[in-house]
Amino acid sequence: MRNFNEDNITSAVLASLSGCRDERTKQISEALVRHLHAFVKEIEPTEAEWSRAIALLTETGQMCSQTRQEFILLSDTLGVSMLVDAINHRFPGNATETTVLGPFYVEQARDFELGAHIASAQDGTPMIVEGNVRDSRGEPIAGALIETWHADDHGLYDVQRGTDKSALNLRARLRTDEAGRFWYRSIVPAAYPVPSDGPVGRMLDAQGRHPFRPAHVHFKVSAPGFETIVTHVFIAGDAYLDSDVVFGVKDALIAQLESIEGRMSPAGHAVEPATALLAYDFVLPRQR
Amino acid sequence: MRNFNEDNITSAVLASLSGCRDERTKQISEALVRHLHAFVKEIEPTEAEWSRAIALLTETGQMCSQTRQEFILLSDTLGVSMLVDAINHRFPGNATETTVLGPFYVEQARDFELGAHIASAQDGTPMIVEGNVRDSRGEPIAGALIETWHADDHGLYDVQRGTDKSALNLRARLRTDEAGRFWYRSIVPAAYPVPSDGPVGRMLDAQGRHPFRPAHVHFKVSAPGFETIVTHVFIAGDAYLDSDVVFGVKDALIAQLESIEGRMSPAGHAVEPATALLAYDFVLPRQR
Repeated sequence: MRNFNEDNITSAVLASLSGCRDERTKQISEALVRHLHAFVKEIEPTEAEWSRAIALLTETGQMCSQTRQEFILLSDTLGVSMLVDAINHRFPGNATETTVLGPFYVEQARDFELGAHIASAQDGTPMIVEGNVRDSRGEPIAGALIETWHADDHGLYDVQRGTDKSALNLRARLRTDEAGRFWYRSIVPAAYPVPSDGPVGRMLDAQGRHPFRPAHVHFKVSAPGFETIVTHVFIAGDAYLDSDVVFGVKDALIAQLESIEGRMSPAGHAVEPATALLAYDFVLPRQR
Repeated sequence: MRNFNEDNITSAVLASLSGCRDERTKQISEALVRHLHAFVKEIEPTEAEWSRAIALLTETGQMCSQTRQEFILLSDTLGVSMLVDAINHRFPGNATETTVLGPFYVEQARDFELGAHIASAQDGTPMIVEGNVRDSRGEPIAGALIETWHADDHGLYDVQRGTDKSALNLRARLRTDEAGRFWYRSIVPAAYPVPSDGPVGRMLDAQGRHPFRPAHVHFKVSAPGFETIVTHVFIAGDAYLDSDVVFGVKDALIAQLESIEGRMSPAGHAVEPATALLAYDFVLPRQR
């Protein structure tokens, strides 16, 4: 355990893990050391570059708060979150496709009745969101928990506008009815840049990438006995569908935003004039 | 740029870097994406594990302050700092071996005259440190800057005991004399654990590793026209020489701590009774 150089340091660090009691911790630690060392050996950072990397990681941690998670954003923008998502959702058959949770999920959002308006102000284009939740054989799932959240018409989430609980907006927990249906009113969300005033923003700029995500509504759908689906529904026609900065778009998750002036929604809900309709049906796979 | 899965996400992220203007940024970003994705694909983290990784990185950033750098400590304890050190110091011939800077270096330490006592209190075993700085042909380097810092007899650095500038202790900037010599008085440092009350401490514990470093004195030696040497001198016989938690020990950097009761030091400096002598000579390679 002395005299380490470029050739023997990696095996020395691996040897230091021999006393690790937990097999999974050992496996992850060994893989981390091997891949991290391989990265460093490939790029051969100068000491100044390594210091800048340390400073960037430090700033990323210090940017995090109750309402901002810069490390999730880093993971998202490097495609790691989508990779972790794919690894964890190898669902068979017709289950709804999943995508990233993102940094704006709030665990303790407010419960709403079906049909409620979840926007606290009336700015923006009125929208009705409706759909149903079924199992893979098409049977409705009653009482499924729908957690939904989305940006406003300026592309900002509630937690970016205010930090206390009373500021929660465009965010709801709903339960499907006995036929597996859900519906609520809100406003049409806008495409938006991920927060770009921190280290991730600087990284994107240095990499020549724009910080935008196409407009979407987040959903987390869960029911006892079923796998939980975390996903978005994207709005067709958005300019950023082919360059989402977090690599989250899937064709099967894109829905047309239809205009349903002065009539009922397809599911039979009365709508205001000039209401936009976003309809999407979810399929939950049974828990394995 | 849609429909990403485990098989195509990595190449999609690499493709998103095609607009990167700076070649080095592109090279580093591409390598980061490839190695990070390979790591994730190998360990296949659950979503809970990935969340714990995000939380650990966040906490590591938030633990950092003016006097503590937990990300450097993470880099040190994963052997990455020694690897970066080795890559950046492929010096030819008889140049002094280098090792990690560590998280306790302070740029603006106090200047001292040669022979000064750099300990603000008289606890601990008195020690005289002496040596010389030469070029690779043995010619003395006059006016070389010696920056030195070390832990106290309890294994703590000044910056761990107090956070304001008046608390600086066991830390000095000195200049070699016309014959390339330096000497100063201090106290014998103790072996110590790296800070273990944060995420790095928990990682070491989970990996079954102790947090100790063998006793040592840090040196940064620089002179115009020469490469800067960042290194330690370790004290022979220390129990942790073969299990340094940051992998920093090299045989050529170990020196005997000699007792020189009631006589002159080898370099001719008068010493107190029962003074320990730590002697080490540095060789700086010419700048390439």
